[in-house]
Amino acid sequence: MTEPAAAENLPPPFEHSIRVTWADCDPARIAYTARLPYFALDAIDAWWDHHLGGGWYHMELDLNMGTPFVHMSLDFLSPVTPRHRLICRVWPSRLGQKSITFRVDGLQDGTLCFKGQFVNVFTVADSFTSQEAPPPIRDLVLPLICP
Amino acid sequence: MTEPAAAENLPPPFEHSIRVTWADCDPARIAYTARLPYFALDAIDAWWDHHLGGGWYHMELDLNMGTPFVHMSLDFLSPVTPRHRLICRVWPSRLGQKSITFRVDGLQDGTLCFKGQFVNVFTVADSFTSQEAPPPIRDLVLPLICP
Amino acid sequence: MTEPAAAENLPPPFEHSIRVTWADCDPARIAYTARLPYFALDAIDAWWDHHLGGGWYHMELDLNMGTPFVHMSLDFLSPVTPRHRLICRVWPSRLGQKSITFRVDGLQDGTLCFKGQFVNVFTVADSFTSQEAPPPIRDLVLPLICP
Amino acid sequence: MTEPAAAENLPPPFEHSIRVTWADCDPARIAYTARLPYFALDAIDAWWDHHLGGGWYHMELDLNMGTPFVHMSLDFLSPVTPRHRLICRVWPSRLGQKSITFRVDGLQDGTLCFKGQFVNVFTVADSFTSQEAPPPIRDLVLPLICP
Repeated sequence: MTEPAAAENLPPPFEHSIRVTWADCDPARIAYTARLPYFALDAIDAWWDHHLGGGWYHMELDLNMGTPFVHMSLDFLSPVTPRHRLICRVWPSRLGQKSITFRVDGLQDGTLCFKGQFVNVFTVADSFTSQEAPPPIRDLVLPLICP
Repeated sequence: MTEPAAAENLPPPFEHSIRVTWADCDPARIAYTARLPYFALDAIDAWWDHHLGGGWYHMELDLNMGTPFVHMSLDFLSPVTPRHRLICRVWPSRLGQKSITFRVDGLQDGTLCFKGQFVNVFTVADSFTSQEAPPPIRDLVLPLICP
Repeated sequence: MTEPAAAENLPPPFEHSIRVTWADCDPARIAYTARLPYFALDAIDAWWDHHLGGGWYHMELDLNMGTPFVHMSLDFLSPVTPRHRLICRVWPSRLGQKSITFRVDGLQDGTLCFKGQFVNVFTVADSFTSQEAPPPIRDLVLPLICP
Repeated sequence: MTEPAAAENLPPPFEHSIRVTWADCDPARIAYTARLPYFALDAIDAWWDHHLGGGWYHMELDLNMGTPFVHMSLDFLSPVTPRHRLICRVWPSRLGQKSITFRVDGLQDGTLCFKGQFVNVFTVADSFTSQEAPPPIRDLVLPLICP
């Protein structure tokens, strides 16, 4: 249903840099597990911000569009610490009629720390009802799909 | 490898109650998505606290045992709000040689809001090295397994 | 301006119990400093919930009343850890025409860990404009003032 | 006890920029009050990072020095939203024998949103005992004091 651009034409994925700090760490001296979905969601919000000119706050308040999550899954491969910036690579991997799937890879100093998959559905924000992906969103997302 | 008790002998799953508040909500007036893994992890920590006499803090500092997460996946079925307590049902669904899998269902007013699966591995805390599930943990967990 | 009840008639302050966990702790193995204002605010929200039948979420959405903070100050006397429940004693210490001041003492195992003072103003929620304390709130709060 | 540099020689205060997002906001569509001390502390950690080559994580793990908070006070002047970056100006305002005081001003689009004062004491990290400000820290901080 989606017509992804040929792989050779794909832009490199968007990267979002996060300053991991003392505040994110637990007594094991690594970022607390539940902080990692926070980081991944921050990166997806930054992806929208970069491509749409505003993140979820802008989408909800100015565009009356919501993108609530229906699924997330993450694999944790290596601890995240304050020793390096956390670089989150974000890209949409699928655009359905009513949903969008994002992939997020989190890296520190070249090491893959976690990878995640996140599925959002499109809603009309003020009525919290499902809607199809609005055409301008579809036009924006389709060329960036990387399955 | 695990010998779960027959289903008819299983105790009802442990329930952990969470007061969801204004602080947990985003401008859509529902709990922010990234709070939900927090709630689920809080419930798993409470499960250990209930069955072992202490949560992750006790396990790490007093028992020199860590249980870092290697995987989590969640499906979000209905928004979580401050209107009702969030009841998290927690149970171990599998015990491997070196890992434990937890299931967490989050309910409000009888409605299933999210369900999650979480995989931890066992480590020696101070060396952050993998270990098999210690025998006392194995003895504690096995009778509570519900696949 | 406020007519506090005589001290001998005062009820004991409202107490709110918080389960401090691994998730709240930093690498120093104590609750991260910025979690402590969270705990204190959670306790104030619970005070409203107890006395009004709903916390800030209820006040804002159902009563169209906001109570934004204009000031907070806290003294930190002893570390907060997961070893004991954190008991927060909350009471209003002053009711002005347009503001209310709360005191929060946080204790663990009988030791005072922090004490804080918090000033809120009353607003009409949907217009974010200042208002005087509504009469039903005034009637509810005045007998509980303890300077 | 401290010999602050003459005002005319003072460098402009360190500025730390924070991306405020949907995740920080409550149903009133502004950053939740308890997020603001988080932001201020993030700015103080960034101040150390900038001047010392590492924040609290580095200080604690590599330098065996802690700086626990004994006091914070904040005045909230204007709501913080995701509409603009939050610029936190941070400077030390006093250096005592065993303590350091920081000031943090938070601004958005030129408007002062909050101002805070924070007092830390110096400790030996692994023993959690008080110590005087180590000489290298004293040498680093003194020229930056702005009362």
